[in-house]
Amino acid sequence: MVHATEDTNAKPQDATTPLTQSTVIKDGADSFSKNDVVISYRGGIIENRHNVHAAIVDASGKLLYTIGDYQRMTLARSSTKPIQTLAILEIGAAERFDYDDADVALMCASHSSEPRHIERAQAMLGKTGEKERVLTCGGHPAQNAAVNRAWIKEDFAPTAIYNNCSGKHVGMVAGAVCLGVTTHDYYLHEHPMQQRVYRAVEDVSGLTKKEVLWTVDGCNLPTPAMPLPNLALMFARLADAADLSDGPSKETLDQRTRHLARIHKCMASYSGLVAGEGRFDTALMTPYNGQVVGKIGADACYAVAVRAPPDADLAGVNHGAIGIAVKVEDGNLDVLYAAVMEILEQLNIGSSEVRQSLDGWRYPKIVNTAGVVTGGYKHCFKIRSVV
Amino acid sequence: MVHATEDTNAKPQDATTPLTQSTVIKDGADSFSKNDVVISYRGGIIENRHNVHAAIVDASGKLLYTIGDYQRMTLARSSTKPIQTLAILEIGAAERFDYDDADVALMCASHSSEPRHIERAQAMLGKTGEKERVLTCGGHPAQNAAVNRAWIKEDFAPTAIYNNCSGKHVGMVAGAVCLGVTTHDYYLHEHPMQQRVYRAVEDVSGLTKKEVLWTVDGCNLPTPAMPLPNLALMFARLADAADLSDGPSKETLDQRTRHLARIHKCMASYSGLVAGEGRFDTALMTPYNGQVVGKIGADACYAVAVRAPPDADLAGVNHGAIGIAVKVEDGNLDVLYAAVMEILEQLNIGSSEVRQSLDGWRYPKIVNTAGVVTGGYKHCFKIRSVV
Repeated sequence: MVHATEDTNAKPQDATTPLTQSTVIKDGADSFSKNDVVISYRGGIIENRHNVHAAIVDASGKLLYTIGDYQRMTLARSSTKPIQTLAILEIGAAERFDYDDADVALMCASHSSEPRHIERAQAMLGKTGEKERVLTCGGHPAQNAAVNRAWIKEDFAPTAIYNNCSGKHVGMVAGAVCLGVTTHDYYLHEHPMQQRVYRAVEDVSGLTKKEVLWTVDGCNLPTPAMPLPNLALMFARLADAADLSDGPSKETLDQRTRHLARIHKCMASYSGLVAGEGRFDTALMTPYNGQVVGKIGADACYAVAVRAPPDADLAGVNHGAIGIAVKVEDGNLDVLYAAVMEILEQLNIGSSEVRQSLDGWRYPKIVNTAGVVTGGYKHCFKIRSVV
Repeated sequence: MVHATEDTNAKPQDATTPLTQSTVIKDGADSFSKNDVVISYRGGIIENRHNVHAAIVDASGKLLYTIGDYQRMTLARSSTKPIQTLAILEIGAAERFDYDDADVALMCASHSSEPRHIERAQAMLGKTGEKERVLTCGGHPAQNAAVNRAWIKEDFAPTAIYNNCSGKHVGMVAGAVCLGVTTHDYYLHEHPMQQRVYRAVEDVSGLTKKEVLWTVDGCNLPTPAMPLPNLALMFARLADAADLSDGPSKETLDQRTRHLARIHKCMASYSGLVAGEGRFDTALMTPYNGQVVGKIGADACYAVAVRAPPDADLAGVNHGAIGIAVKVEDGNLDVLYAAVMEILEQLNIGSSEVRQSLDGWRYPKIVNTAGVVTGGYKHCFKIRSVV
């Protein structure tokens, strides 16, 4: 039998003991030291390890920083929504149905099925003349716990309009109507609406048709897989478009740049519609006050669109707009949010006050059923500068 | 920008495409090929990877097979319960309070808070003369979804007796009464009840006092960390004791072996009390009909106690009792259950009919909100024979 080599007495570790070299179990840790990981610990003992990958690029697609297997081919899932929304806007659906900035934010949302989300989705659908039965996403329990409790109390079975992706689905039905094609099959890959999405994703990510892989998402729409730098590029371009739209050349921007700028600004302005009460996307975007847009994708994919700091010298950094794409190899969401905050800290994005206000996400506490803090998380990675 | 190298057209992968070499994305996979992993995929595209570690030993502690970082220092969490129960039985609590075999099974349980669990825990507590307020584990939502829905409908706030660990906590209160010591502090590491647990864990795992690390569990009791082979050894000894208790020397067994044998048999006989409706522990133990006892630990630790096959020649295997300890590095439970079933398959434990009846756990389907199967799991590991 192989025994632990750690020399300790039988007294339990204080559950709140921070993870230090002396209390970390050496055994087994070495095999992971080559990787960039987030560790969860319990009383100074490693509980779980999570591999983290990230790519940070500028709006030209230049790779700036990396973490882990930064080229990882990654299913973007709902992180694609801003670009799916781009395709909807480029068809002209917002003008045709008079969708406002809040509606655009809801198209980009993985919302929590709160009344503000559902009422807006219903109103947006109503404008198309279509009924809820056209939506193919199905229902599921709400991500807002209070909403879900209310549903259970009423024996309410949520339908498609209550799906966290209903804003996007309604937007695509609107797109199909604008295109003058059938609406019932809007979710199929060969449908003109989806083909518009494919082309938008290819264009903005800088990939060819053959380089983006598509499969079926949790809400039944096509969803793309791509290397992390390309996902990051889509978000760098969102942020760069927002910068350009406030710059000296704002009157001469092309239509796509105007749409990308609008999407960034809509998400930042209506961050409560993009996710909801207590959710990370909303919590992240609120204090950054327009500089940062973030979007979760299922199974722990995340993308961030960071506008250039208003005064690069004052902020101590010198970059234009950047995009950040992150994937936690095992799909753990708590770890993803913590890693995103750690990356923003290491990149010095925004003021320290803003970042500190989000420290609860960077270092979530592990609390037991008796209310005792039994552990936490430690970030064991550093961004690598490519240049 | 680095592009995907996979040559494919833009048509989405059929969501049910099995994961084959030709459809698996190469990019990024290589960096994990040295590890033993379970992969989840979506339409043939890798979504997540999970590192799996396991040790398989016989009742002498001899290492038989390994997977991954098999010596990993691992928080055993609720997988420790059978040995915590051993300490309770050795104090004489079962005789003192007339606890039957079903009560012993509930001490070993992470139950689902179904009426059968709560009523039994309440009856067990009543026999001690103590009240529920002595329990320090707190309440939490039930693991049984129907129970939880009923609680929500009634605005019921679950208390400590409803905790999934309440059987163990009541058992320890009973142990404290038997010892003639205070009961309110039964959960503290210096309490005589816990010191009995420490000694039982050390003895049965084959470790010294300094080799077992302790911290605070999710239910507020001390919980040990140890290398996987030692956790496996505890379970090999449970199974071996059950074998011995049915063998020719059954009249001359020592008290500890009798207790270990009883625990194995109680868990196997009352598998519905050890977990509950639809839970893996219960689903696993039922068809194995006494040969296999399994116990989940939080954050994806699992231990299995396998009795020697009734006819080694017929079963095509030749081993006595064995213990299996498994840890998924990132704490994912679906992956853990799948990996445990894959390990039992590779070890040829039980009949193929029994294993096939559990294939839904070995290969869980990933289903979206529209009811479409969008992906599944693939086991990318093989047990390594040590001998």
